[in-house]
Amino acid sequence: MVKRNYNGKLKVISLGGLQEIGKNITIFEYGNEIIAVDCGIAFPEDSMLGIDLVIPDFTYLRKNKHKFKALFLTHGHEDHIGAVPYLLKEFNVPVYGTKLTIGLVENKLREHNLLSKANLVCVDTGETIKQGKFEVEFIRTTHSIADSVAFAIKTPVGVIVHSGDFKIDHTPIQGDPIDLQRFAELGKKGVLLFLCESTNIEQKGYTLSERTVGSIFEQVFEDSKKQRIMVATFSSNIDRIQQIIYSAVKHRRKVAIIGRSMENTVRTANQLGYLDIPKNILIDISELSNYTDEQLVIITTGSQGEPMAALSRIASSDHKQVDIKPGDKVIISSSPIPGNEKTISKVINELMKKGADVIYDGLMNDVHVSGHAKQEEIKILHALIKPKFLVPIHGEYKHLKCHKELAISMGMKKENVFVMNIGDVLELSNKTARCVTNVPAGEVLVDGLGVGDVSNIVLRDRKHLSEDGLMIVVITMERETGRILAGPDIISRGFVYVKESEVLISEAKAVVKVGLDKCEERNITEWFFIKNFIRDALREFLWQQTKRSPMILPIIMEV
Amino acid sequence: MVKRNYNGKLKVISLGGLQEIGKNITIFEYGNEIIAVDCGIAFPEDSMLGIDLVIPDFTYLRKNKHKFKALFLTHGHEDHIGAVPYLLKEFNVPVYGTKLTIGLVENKLREHNLLSKANLVCVDTGETIKQGKFEVEFIRTTHSIADSVAFAIKTPVGVIVHSGDFKIDHTPIQGDPIDLQRFAELGKKGVLLFLCESTNIEQKGYTLSERTVGSIFEQVFEDSKKQRIMVATFSSNIDRIQQIIYSAVKHRRKVAIIGRSMENTVRTANQLGYLDIPKNILIDISELSNYTDEQLVIITTGSQGEPMAALSRIASSDHKQVDIKPGDKVIISSSPIPGNEKTISKVINELMKKGADVIYDGLMNDVHVSGHAKQEEIKILHALIKPKFLVPIHGEYKHLKCHKELAISMGMKKENVFVMNIGDVLELSNKTARCVTNVPAGEVLVDGLGVGDVSNIVLRDRKHLSEDGLMIVVITMERETGRILAGPDIISRGFVYVKESEVLISEAKAVVKVGLDKCEERNITEWFFIKNFIRDALREFLWQQTKRSPMILPIIMEV
Repeated sequence: MVKRNYNGKLKVISLGGLQEIGKNITIFEYGNEIIAVDCGIAFPEDSMLGIDLVIPDFTYLRKNKHKFKALFLTHGHEDHIGAVPYLLKEFNVPVYGTKLTIGLVENKLREHNLLSKANLVCVDTGETIKQGKFEVEFIRTTHSIADSVAFAIKTPVGVIVHSGDFKIDHTPIQGDPIDLQRFAELGKKGVLLFLCESTNIEQKGYTLSERTVGSIFEQVFEDSKKQRIMVATFSSNIDRIQQIIYSAVKHRRKVAIIGRSMENTVRTANQLGYLDIPKNILIDISELSNYTDEQLVIITTGSQGEPMAALSRIASSDHKQVDIKPGDKVIISSSPIPGNEKTISKVINELMKKGADVIYDGLMNDVHVSGHAKQEEIKILHALIKPKFLVPIHGEYKHLKCHKELAISMGMKKENVFVMNIGDVLELSNKTARCVTNVPAGEVLVDGLGVGDVSNIVLRDRKHLSEDGLMIVVITMERETGRILAGPDIISRGFVYVKESEVLISEAKAVVKVGLDKCEERNITEWFFIKNFIRDALREFLWQQTKRSPMILPIIMEV
Repeated sequence: MVKRNYNGKLKVISLGGLQEIGKNITIFEYGNEIIAVDCGIAFPEDSMLGIDLVIPDFTYLRKNKHKFKALFLTHGHEDHIGAVPYLLKEFNVPVYGTKLTIGLVENKLREHNLLSKANLVCVDTGETIKQGKFEVEFIRTTHSIADSVAFAIKTPVGVIVHSGDFKIDHTPIQGDPIDLQRFAELGKKGVLLFLCESTNIEQKGYTLSERTVGSIFEQVFEDSKKQRIMVATFSSNIDRIQQIIYSAVKHRRKVAIIGRSMENTVRTANQLGYLDIPKNILIDISELSNYTDEQLVIITTGSQGEPMAALSRIASSDHKQVDIKPGDKVIISSSPIPGNEKTISKVINELMKKGADVIYDGLMNDVHVSGHAKQEEIKILHALIKPKFLVPIHGEYKHLKCHKELAISMGMKKENVFVMNIGDVLELSNKTARCVTNVPAGEVLVDGLGVGDVSNIVLRDRKHLSEDGLMIVVITMERETGRILAGPDIISRGFVYVKESEVLISEAKAVVKVGLDKCEERNITEWFFIKNFIRDALREFLWQQTKRSPMILPIIMEV
């Protein structure tokens, strides 16, 4: 037991994952020690043109670098571990996680050339890691990736429970069910603060057990004796993959794994003992032609219709080794993440046009279950833990607010539930909690190798260019006299198809010439003003002609 | 009765609305006569950057201009009437529709300055319009806009029924229910071909009556006695608006209408008698401040989270006259059109952050019902009409295929159901149907005033620019000698924030200079090759430095 020090206060700050989906990271600060839980990425919003991914802003950690002691990971999903390489580049703290989580982090760090320097520690569920004034206990939960945990963090002011992502699955595919007894035990002793995920908080009832999907797979395999079977799912859903493999084994089919992330995850999970794959079941993609349709199952990425993933490429006949053919049975074992509905539909349509039987969420709900707790499950955890204070985490504002209302409906005091924003500082004593201030928090955009170098100005320009393209006007002038030596030349991209718009372009040139003449008349000689003059004249002309506003870039070269 | 001419064949061609959502138009051709049913727009796909809307390709009509006699409209939704102005610009055919549909078309034509020339004809349900060898009967249906009809088209080869968009609503808000008896009568006499909509074909069961939403509104009004109420819905859903007004009247509230399309539709519907609005109920937006919260209902556009619509602007405090405040009750009376989930969530989050109580689809299903028939309703129409041939229309491939399977499950012969693509020609005699050939069909992109002038090249450039921006290299050379007189100058937009990337930009300049030197060494003097050389060198350099590929535009000015 940690010796309680009632003088100090504990700070709890989420640098990501509040009022947004993804880039989950919460830090706990006491005295001169900080530990962090999770460090994930978010996917870019539609308005973040060209951005690859979004990571948390580490400014606060940077300012308190000397305090930052360790990172604890709840599970191996991208929104919880994806930004670990970016964190470790700056802060080489030890990283604690369960075996599979650490295995997946290793893959990531290898890609970033960071593995050799990293200090990764595998922890079993039930174990506790002491880190200064903190003691972090790993509690087994169930989720859509194996080896997920919640944390009970003993701090000098009291015990904090962080749920991680969870569902209550009493019949998980591998390992034990979620350790409800331990949550009850902690609750009985007294939990000061509960940080609880809110992803499915809007949904009534219970999420079904992962195992229910297995019996549906069985049924589909039974109904598809003569057909080649292809299943698309999340590469991280190892239990789903396990169930497909079980069905394949039962029906004497070989299994080929397609898609880079799927191959990586299966390899790692297999090596670490999280998959039970009998010998001679897995085949290489190059061996597909050695087997008949009824001898094959293909497991693939692309269940969200991602354009570059294997399933999309197969559907659009753009995959080198696999082609869809009439009679193939394709199971899309996922439900659309909001925003992906259209790309998934597109893939389904393509597959069907090529003659495949496609089973998907719209038709048959049971080929997928969620990994997140619905209302009744969240209530169970609340009832077991009975925290004094609650911070709903992992959700948009509407989710956090809905979670607050659920807690109040269970008897919690309104003032003891904190709907916070990223950067908000919750200060806790053993009796009180107050949202006192906030620290820098936000999003850092990653584009190629650039981390944070794409500013709002760059994004605004990309948006402008994407909508109406650009028009460049180049003029060469004599330095002394201001006489035009060459041009105006006009180059446009993404505006109109120039070959079919010669008249418009030559009229635009005329507008520029008239503008230059006017500048001369009015004795406007400063380049800045000449450029503005041309830009305004051209913008007006183009808007009248086309009702479009391309970006206009006047360039004056001086000789 | 039309005299049957068994020598000729009838052609049925959809120029839009098959294997896609929107831009519905189907033409019927017999001998030297063509009539068209509907002429709608589609909304641009995400990849169509900067495009405002998409209309059908009229090439086939253009080639057969002399045959094209009339346009018949089933109802006043954008995907059925939106492209009418673009059609009438080229083909000034008479347009037949029910009163409300024609009223909405008038609004459109007025905006396009086409109203004075147009020949618009109001037709009552039950009436038949004779057009050469065709007789088009208007049959009352029910849908999410008043005055919707199906058509029974008597042709020399037999009767064709076109469903339009429909649901089976036995208790519509205004007017009579769908005329099921007439469909039965037609079916009894013999229907050759049924063109039936497929929007909700994937969904089991029945769509609820529009009236069910009214009782939910009642309940919400009852529960919100002290609150200002705001309802967002589709501007075209006049029956929904009517029900809100009924509740407002009952609870002694005034109603303000906000949003341009909502104001237009309400004005038109009111003038034509499709809304029953007691005197002194409607108030102007400028009068809002004269009333207390419990005296007000605001009906607004923006239920799909459209960024420029009233609700979004209110949510983001960007609306001039209306501000959201704590305690406001907001009902979002629609369900997300696929692709809009994220924008709607954003608006909901914003409203909630400002303290509004928001009722939306995720929490309470009943604040919206669909306007489209589900499986059981579609089965009813099939059972009444018992067509010899079926063409499922209005849907993606998966919908059309699902519809085919439904028809087969009801006993229809597989070979009598035609899952077609736009442009496919179905040739019908009184006994046979064959898909024989196809004619030009596709999408014409509208961007500002430009119709069809944005090519794939332009879109590809916009995409490239949107992802990585551009870098312009300008050099002025002496014509005779090839000597560089000015530059290389580098200008970039949407690539990096130049002020923070001075090193990169000056290194890029150096790369260009080295490239130019190499060109000189190798005696490369053709501009084309110099430009390519610079482009390749710069692309390679930038990729290595940033893993990004901006569009590179080398410009050489000659003096």
